[in-house]
Amino acid sequence: MNYNFSKKVSELKPSVIREILKFTGMPGIIPFAAGNPAAEAFPTAAVEEISAKILRERPIDALQYSITEGYPKLRETVRNLMKKQDSVKDFDDVIITSGAQQVMNLSTQALCNEGDTIICESPSFIGSLNAFRSFNVKLRGVPLESDGMNLEELERALKEEPKARFIYVIANFQNPSGVTTSLEKRKAIYELAKRYKVLIVEDNPYGETRFEGEALPNIKSMDTDGIVIYAGSFSKVISPGLRVGYAIAPKEVIAKLTVCKQVSDVHTGIFGQLIVDSFVNDYDFDAHIAKIKEIYGRKSRLMMQALDTKCPALRYNKIQGGLFIWCDLPSGINMLDFAKEAVEKSVAVVPGNAFLMSENEPCNSIRLNFSTPSDEQIVSGVDILSGLLS
Amino acid sequence: MNYNFSKKVSELKPSVIREILKFTGMPGIIPFAAGNPAAEAFPTAAVEEISAKILRERPIDALQYSITEGYPKLRETVRNLMKKQDSVKDFDDVIITSGAQQVMNLSTQALCNEGDTIICESPSFIGSLNAFRSFNVKLRGVPLESDGMNLEELERALKEEPKARFIYVIANFQNPSGVTTSLEKRKAIYELAKRYKVLIVEDNPYGETRFEGEALPNIKSMDTDGIVIYAGSFSKVISPGLRVGYAIAPKEVIAKLTVCKQVSDVHTGIFGQLIVDSFVNDYDFDAHIAKIKEIYGRKSRLMMQALDTKCPALRYNKIQGGLFIWCDLPSGINMLDFAKEAVEKSVAVVPGNAFLMSENEPCNSIRLNFSTPSDEQIVSGVDILSGLLS
Repeated sequence: MNYNFSKKVSELKPSVIREILKFTGMPGIIPFAAGNPAAEAFPTAAVEEISAKILRERPIDALQYSITEGYPKLRETVRNLMKKQDSVKDFDDVIITSGAQQVMNLSTQALCNEGDTIICESPSFIGSLNAFRSFNVKLRGVPLESDGMNLEELERALKEEPKARFIYVIANFQNPSGVTTSLEKRKAIYELAKRYKVLIVEDNPYGETRFEGEALPNIKSMDTDGIVIYAGSFSKVISPGLRVGYAIAPKEVIAKLTVCKQVSDVHTGIFGQLIVDSFVNDYDFDAHIAKIKEIYGRKSRLMMQALDTKCPALRYNKIQGGLFIWCDLPSGINMLDFAKEAVEKSVAVVPGNAFLMSENEPCNSIRLNFSTPSDEQIVSGVDILSGLLS
Repeated sequence: MNYNFSKKVSELKPSVIREILKFTGMPGIIPFAAGNPAAEAFPTAAVEEISAKILRERPIDALQYSITEGYPKLRETVRNLMKKQDSVKDFDDVIITSGAQQVMNLSTQALCNEGDTIICESPSFIGSLNAFRSFNVKLRGVPLESDGMNLEELERALKEEPKARFIYVIANFQNPSGVTTSLEKRKAIYELAKRYKVLIVEDNPYGETRFEGEALPNIKSMDTDGIVIYAGSFSKVISPGLRVGYAIAPKEVIAKLTVCKQVSDVHTGIFGQLIVDSFVNDYDFDAHIAKIKEIYGRKSRLMMQALDTKCPALRYNKIQGGLFIWCDLPSGINMLDFAKEAVEKSVAVVPGNAFLMSENEPCNSIRLNFSTPSDEQIVSGVDILSGLLS
């Protein structure tokens, strides 16, 4: 039987990362290709207490259908958290989503016709790129520099793409590059979006992981014109398995995202929403975040030190947060061959071309993750990579 | 700011039911408009035990990222459950979804280009109709008779719609009509789909609620050709709040649904999947289903008896399962006025036109739900409706 899949998805392939992840579960593989939060970063004891309390005191609330917009108290909690970052405006509303990934899906469905353009940092997060592709939109990449997108190229893209609908930005510790967009560039991106009448989707899954340096204002905090959709997530600060994220955007936009969500999955699992809301309000959330920063700061330094010592030929940008280090291989080494040899030696890394607008663009980089492997695996994995480089 | 929403969603409105549901939460409103499982049907004590055990013994499994296809053990559990109904073929695979609603979303995204046609029973479930609409497909309704779709009209639709991609069928206790498609018509629908080379999406959220009569074979059980996508759900038999459903379909189709799901929400909440899997395997699932049948049998009889006694002017089909009774108002009564008066008198009902391909088609029916209201509310709500009819 020929199933004649739709044009928008017939070319869509499984994410290379998710495919590699299947191998990383195999015994003995060192998972530098993953993006999982460190297991020790989960507030397991608190979740155990909270779950018991919810199911003892209000089980029906945890098990019954709920409303599409999300648990009202959690929406208020998100509003309060994000007000501290000046990232909820008077015209904004909040929707709880099934992870921040769903914000990309809903935003694309609500805003883009087939053939429209989304402007992306290049490289960018493959999960988002694939979400955009699944609605048959065109991706226009703008080269990412060490302080954010190249602004001349961004403006050129805005001029050349009359059907551009939004600019997709991960301003903090970008996945995969680790780049943090400077304050100056955040302002410039906002002004360009405004001038060319396109929206911005600001995805900030890693903001709270900053283990070094001062936090920069979100682009959303500059949003006097109602042109920014902000995507946040509890995946990196509480648990990704519960699938609880959110979007903050002007009420009109949230209303449309809500209709799209209603027909996608009715609502986000309510038990997970209740757990997240209780953890943020009834426990010391700030102390927990401090602990996460400590864990990732330590693990990232461990990997960077190992790379500096063992793999001086690998070039990378020092990072101040996030979960990833983006490494350029020495010229003369074929990146795909290297990634293949690495996995044969039991180290899984992600080939950098997975993050480009087209996998066929030249790429000599790999993405390494330091949150999933144990400290011992970080050291031995970098050892193995160094063997492949010598 | 004019946000220029996409063509596919600019016309999409929130589901009338979800909107009415907001009122049904208001104190004093009798919720005949809802579709919530009865609170007493939830296995709350078991879920409390299971959750505690999972979080004590394997918290990381419940909180970490998981794979898009779903928890492998739960996929096997679903396979075993559905084998008993001969509804998993050798060529089939299983994906766990965020409720059965997501199966409609993913199937439409994977199979339909904009402008393609989906053939639906008329009336049909508004959540699915809106999911289809959100991809800008055309809905072609086929009148539903007391034993399933009118077959001549179905064949006419298949002839007249060369871009038909699938037939959407709820064969058991259809929402909203309560109709169960006869065995003869199940076979005929399958043969027509095969002859005209379209797929069938068989949605079976209520199958396990049958409180009277003998179960009929699923259309999926007849699927020798790999043309049926079967959608199932644990919402009505365990909990809708956990959002755990599934699709069974040929491997090629499941592979494409998996790619679409990956970019939609990465995976279904894993804690919920673990809870569902444990409940089915470690508890007496059959006894729990027997209890659910008992609850809904009793509540449906209570409502039908009250209707027979108090509202003889309302005509409805006797039902053998499901959560809904579809009532035709006496001619001369304006349906929308009636629904409005009912909610003013504190009884929320769903206007039947919500379930048609176009809300502007003539309709003199309303949908009543008996699972959400208490027994007392069933009696007093029907009393109030009878007052409006006299």
